[in-house]
Amino acid sequence: MPIKFPKHLKPIEPQGASILEKERQNATFNTEDLMEFIFGKDYITKRNRILGILQNDPVLGDKSHRYYNGRDVRFKKSLAAAKRFVELQRIHNWTDEEYGIADFLFDESTAFRLHRSMFMPTIANQGTEEQKKLFLEPALKYEIIGCYAQTELGHGSNVRGLETTATYHPETETFVLNSPTLTASKWWIGGLGVAANYAVVMARLISNGKDYGPHPFVVQIRNLENHEPLKGITVGDIGPKFGFNTVDNGFILFDNVHVPHISMLARYSRIDKKTGEYINPPNSKLAYGTMVFVRANIVLESRLVLARAATVAVRYSAIRIQGSDAANPKKVTNSKGESVVVETPVLDYTMQQYRLFPIIAQAYACHFTGQQMHRMYNKNQERMAQGDFSYLADLHASSSGLKSLTTTLAVAAIEECRRACGGHGYSLFSGLGQFYQDYLPKATWEGDNYLLTQQTARYLFKTMRQLRAGRIDGKESFSSGYISEYLSNTTVRCSFSYLEELDNPEALLSAFKFRAAFLVDKAVHALDAEGASWNDMLVEIYRVSRAHCQLLLATNFIQAVFGTSLQANANTARVLQQIAILFCLSTIEQEAADFLSSGYLSPEQSLMVKQRLVQVLKLVRPNAVALVDAFGFPDYLLNSALGEKDGHVYEKMTEMAEREPLNQNTVADGYEEFIQPLIHKGKKNWKVDQDGVAKL
Amino acid sequence: MPIKFPKHLKPIEPQGASILEKERQNATFNTEDLMEFIFGKDYITKRNRILGILQNDPVLGDKSHRYYNGRDVRFKKSLAAAKRFVELQRIHNWTDEEYGIADFLFDESTAFRLHRSMFMPTIANQGTEEQKKLFLEPALKYEIIGCYAQTELGHGSNVRGLETTATYHPETETFVLNSPTLTASKWWIGGLGVAANYAVVMARLISNGKDYGPHPFVVQIRNLENHEPLKGITVGDIGPKFGFNTVDNGFILFDNVHVPHISMLARYSRIDKKTGEYINPPNSKLAYGTMVFVRANIVLESRLVLARAATVAVRYSAIRIQGSDAANPKKVTNSKGESVVVETPVLDYTMQQYRLFPIIAQAYACHFTGQQMHRMYNKNQERMAQGDFSYLADLHASSSGLKSLTTTLAVAAIEECRRACGGHGYSLFSGLGQFYQDYLPKATWEGDNYLLTQQTARYLFKTMRQLRAGRIDGKESFSSGYISEYLSNTTVRCSFSYLEELDNPEALLSAFKFRAAFLVDKAVHALDAEGASWNDMLVEIYRVSRAHCQLLLATNFIQAVFGTSLQANANTARVLQQIAILFCLSTIEQEAADFLSSGYLSPEQSLMVKQRLVQVLKLVRPNAVALVDAFGFPDYLLNSALGEKDGHVYEKMTEMAEREPLNQNTVADGYEEFIQPLIHKGKKNWKVDQDGVAKL
Repeated sequence: MPIKFPKHLKPIEPQGASILEKERQNATFNTEDLMEFIFGKDYITKRNRILGILQNDPVLGDKSHRYYNGRDVRFKKSLAAAKRFVELQRIHNWTDEEYGIADFLFDESTAFRLHRSMFMPTIANQGTEEQKKLFLEPALKYEIIGCYAQTELGHGSNVRGLETTATYHPETETFVLNSPTLTASKWWIGGLGVAANYAVVMARLISNGKDYGPHPFVVQIRNLENHEPLKGITVGDIGPKFGFNTVDNGFILFDNVHVPHISMLARYSRIDKKTGEYINPPNSKLAYGTMVFVRANIVLESRLVLARAATVAVRYSAIRIQGSDAANPKKVTNSKGESVVVETPVLDYTMQQYRLFPIIAQAYACHFTGQQMHRMYNKNQERMAQGDFSYLADLHASSSGLKSLTTTLAVAAIEECRRACGGHGYSLFSGLGQFYQDYLPKATWEGDNYLLTQQTARYLFKTMRQLRAGRIDGKESFSSGYISEYLSNTTVRCSFSYLEELDNPEALLSAFKFRAAFLVDKAVHALDAEGASWNDMLVEIYRVSRAHCQLLLATNFIQAVFGTSLQANANTARVLQQIAILFCLSTIEQEAADFLSSGYLSPEQSLMVKQRLVQVLKLVRPNAVALVDAFGFPDYLLNSALGEKDGHVYEKMTEMAEREPLNQNTVADGYEEFIQPLIHKGKKNWKVDQDGVAKL
Repeated sequence: MPIKFPKHLKPIEPQGASILEKERQNATFNTEDLMEFIFGKDYITKRNRILGILQNDPVLGDKSHRYYNGRDVRFKKSLAAAKRFVELQRIHNWTDEEYGIADFLFDESTAFRLHRSMFMPTIANQGTEEQKKLFLEPALKYEIIGCYAQTELGHGSNVRGLETTATYHPETETFVLNSPTLTASKWWIGGLGVAANYAVVMARLISNGKDYGPHPFVVQIRNLENHEPLKGITVGDIGPKFGFNTVDNGFILFDNVHVPHISMLARYSRIDKKTGEYINPPNSKLAYGTMVFVRANIVLESRLVLARAATVAVRYSAIRIQGSDAANPKKVTNSKGESVVVETPVLDYTMQQYRLFPIIAQAYACHFTGQQMHRMYNKNQERMAQGDFSYLADLHASSSGLKSLTTTLAVAAIEECRRACGGHGYSLFSGLGQFYQDYLPKATWEGDNYLLTQQTARYLFKTMRQLRAGRIDGKESFSSGYISEYLSNTTVRCSFSYLEELDNPEALLSAFKFRAAFLVDKAVHALDAEGASWNDMLVEIYRVSRAHCQLLLATNFIQAVFGTSLQANANTARVLQQIAILFCLSTIEQEAADFLSSGYLSPEQSLMVKQRLVQVLKLVRPNAVALVDAFGFPDYLLNSALGEKDGHVYEKMTEMAEREPLNQNTVADGYEEFIQPLIHKGKKNWKVDQDGVAKL
């Protein structure tokens, strides 16, 4: 018989639902206003419509299996979901945006993910018209299902190190693919392990004895009739991962696999069919523009990750009680109308606020920067179309560092929120464990978060050198602006002298600017004057990029909410301004070593920052629940007992525990084999009465 | 047919085995010497003997299932292991130490864990002789299997908030246990979900209408004959967790469950059988002594966690190549005897060293502090036996903060090492994913890592106040020593003026001392003079504890390796001294904000610390592999493709991938149902030749 909780028991007073209701009443602004400000009416309408479709779908509506099953069950259910997504898209004729919303709400990657996100876009961007017709059209209909095979077992981000070869043979007009070593095996390729029958394979192009480095080839890998691997191909799944186990990341090795000349994607560089001559690609900076677009989306996604983690932790922290704050005891009115002291909700503790509220602020910071990146991307595309590439370098450099910084923040935030939920954060029912595990790869793909910072720093170093040499001025770009300001006065110091002054947005930005420019200056000096190698400076390079990107986040946030163009009512504006200040203060506090070692902030001022931060946390406290509510994450997405909107934390925990497979019988499988023999061995020493009570 | 990798392929040159061999040759000290220095000969002999037993055991020898299976399979296999452990202990007559070694090597908690670690010790410590005879004797024989039920669904660390009641009825001489609400359900109780038939239940003792707060009761919960829950008891498993899923953490609710008078553990406080009168416990500070012992062991365990994570990441980083350091290209001699440039091992990159080497240093720091805690514990036990409690407060306060700091470091280290392994760190084959998940609860149990710091800080604040009031002097304790030193000169400043000076151990310790005392001073001032509440100060309180405990780690490390009593040869001593300096510098660098805001370190000096740190990383580089080798973790423990001793990283990755259940057929389960229908739908658009190659 399945184990059930006694239905007559309620949680201790006060109930979560009434707590959250009160929290919402206490907010100083209207949640719907802020939600509309963030997403716009149109998006909210779409999200609600698609949510209705998913929640009521027979395949996608039930997420309850996700926390209990092993990879075998979850993978198969996820395959079913992948197929259902294909059907739903056809039925509802979803746009890319709508598909993205559905994907976000469903919140589980499937075996077809890379088919959509990499296989088709690569052919679309790098294929000729003929290739698009040949490969893209069946791909759109899922007659062929593809993946993107770049990474190898022995080679990660460094594309130049790839070992797989594609040698052209003009006599047969074929490329021959080979994996010369074990480390040449493609590895980590999403969708390849089980599902894909085609792959874009990055392989070193060799023609007429010359190695032209990695190029993309569209390669059939499995038989369309029966899905068996083609001759010369060893393909399979790379095995279990820390997360993302509903995706079949795979490996593939090639042993003299022949593919026709048409297989090499030839929009840019190509091989002459007859002679095998290599034809150079035209200089294409356009690809960098696309990267900016992709990264803007990653920053906007980070915002949702930060806000989602905070939603769970903030709501639960409002409900969870622990101990009592002696100086400020919490009182409630009981059913008899008496005022009684109850334990304090953990959200009232400064430490909890200190852990959680900056994460809310980061979510909003990423929102404004993601939006700004999209605006800059559009502006830059227009300019590039007119042959003007002047925006590109700054934009690309900043987008590299921003991808690194915001995904690093988001990864840290999920885990911090999980831990801030105390013991229950460790239950998968928190909804934060799997979330962390599945989001983690974002810190590695689309550019490793450490490596990317080198691109950002390299550009800033160049800017500093060019400014010093007088080859550019401060009007060239945002970066040259703040660096030249610094160069014009490297001995300026922060002027804060009392706490409230710390809310001055311009003054806060000046601090971020000085600190970033100072770090650039020191690093350039070490490289150019002190003989430090690039390798010696990697730690500082990382810091330079982080400082620059924190400045960008602060700048975009401040400009958006303190500017005259802010499209929000007074209450909404006020709370946004408050958390902009919180973002700046908490970031300065976390990075205080930089601000202090640059000399810009004095020791006394840094202590003031800490004090003011605690004061601002208190100001944000009444709005905390409403600020996460404004992101409007439905319970369907959160899949969390701790974070659900109506606050039935403990009822949900017990309902979810009832579904645990071990609880489907009062005596679990394994008892007879492994426990009973030990206990019954001592049977001569005890007896039990008719109720089973032992007499030892 | 199962998928197999081509057997003739080898990884790219140079091979991992030869790389690690060279790394080992380059070390400046003898690994065996250092291993013996850390563990002693006796322990190493025991470890090797027990390793032999486990590796060859039919039940415990094979860990290969751990990464592939869901909770269902893993839990059942773990139950089998639990039973086998009981048998092995009988066969080999293991001491507690030997059992602990076996448990460490097996590296998976089972359903019987809490029976040994909490149920039996609680009865042993808090039971009368009669109770020990009644409960402990059958427990030792596993005729009864117990757990420790304290935490409730609505109440974590705050024992005073517990809701479960045990009301005494003198007329029947029974206690009646009740769970008045849903939140009163016991929750998180290891071993309770499936295995236990007894529990120590912490419940509010109520007698003659008075509530005496939580007390321990030994309660039978399941029938010894058939394992069914007894009347009035709802018991089951709490469901899946982020880790630790081989343990059946459970819940239990009581509905008028009667237990006899003997059930209440009565060594300290007790209830008179006839009258129900409550008899007060004698004042017992002795329990605090035990906590110090437990925490010393946690610190020593942290050391192994840090070192184990570093072992995997350091070995793999020596083998993994990526890109090329232009200023210092890596050359090897190929099979033709030519010198060729190869990609650079990531361990040569400063950033990688910066991420990993401080973790090695932390492992050694925890080693010396754990040892010192044991010495202090013994000294204190002797003194307490003579009625002298003067050591206790300092020792207990420090042990609280050290438990918090060292487990926090260890948690962070596993995840940092996992990420430092790049993409492959995300594979469960890294051995770091499950390790992180299973170790995490250490940050919450035995005292939440945030709450614990309040105990440390409270003691330090008291010490500061007593010193100021002249009630104690600097000779009272370690803490009073450095705080009084600070009070005697609060304006002293660091005197470093050139880089090499930073290797002066005494000067480094002075910096740690000043910084810790400064934080105590500021916090006491805020509380006593500025009207800050305890809650306002929680963030600073955390910092105070961390600063104090980092000082302790640094002090114990420095004193052990620079002192005259060091029992190690010159080469070993030199490398230990080097990493002691590394520990100090990297800690100062990470916490630079504190050192700067106290005014002790100038901005220029803080930049010097960063520079010197990078230099010291370079000095440690040749010894990195040998330093982790010295912990002697066998491959059986590591269960890691990336970290295995002989460096066959890529061979292991592929072997482990072959065991993935999805790879047991070339076409995986799910294809026919979910993939084939999509592809075959377009059958009119393509055909395949006899090799399966498509004509689109």
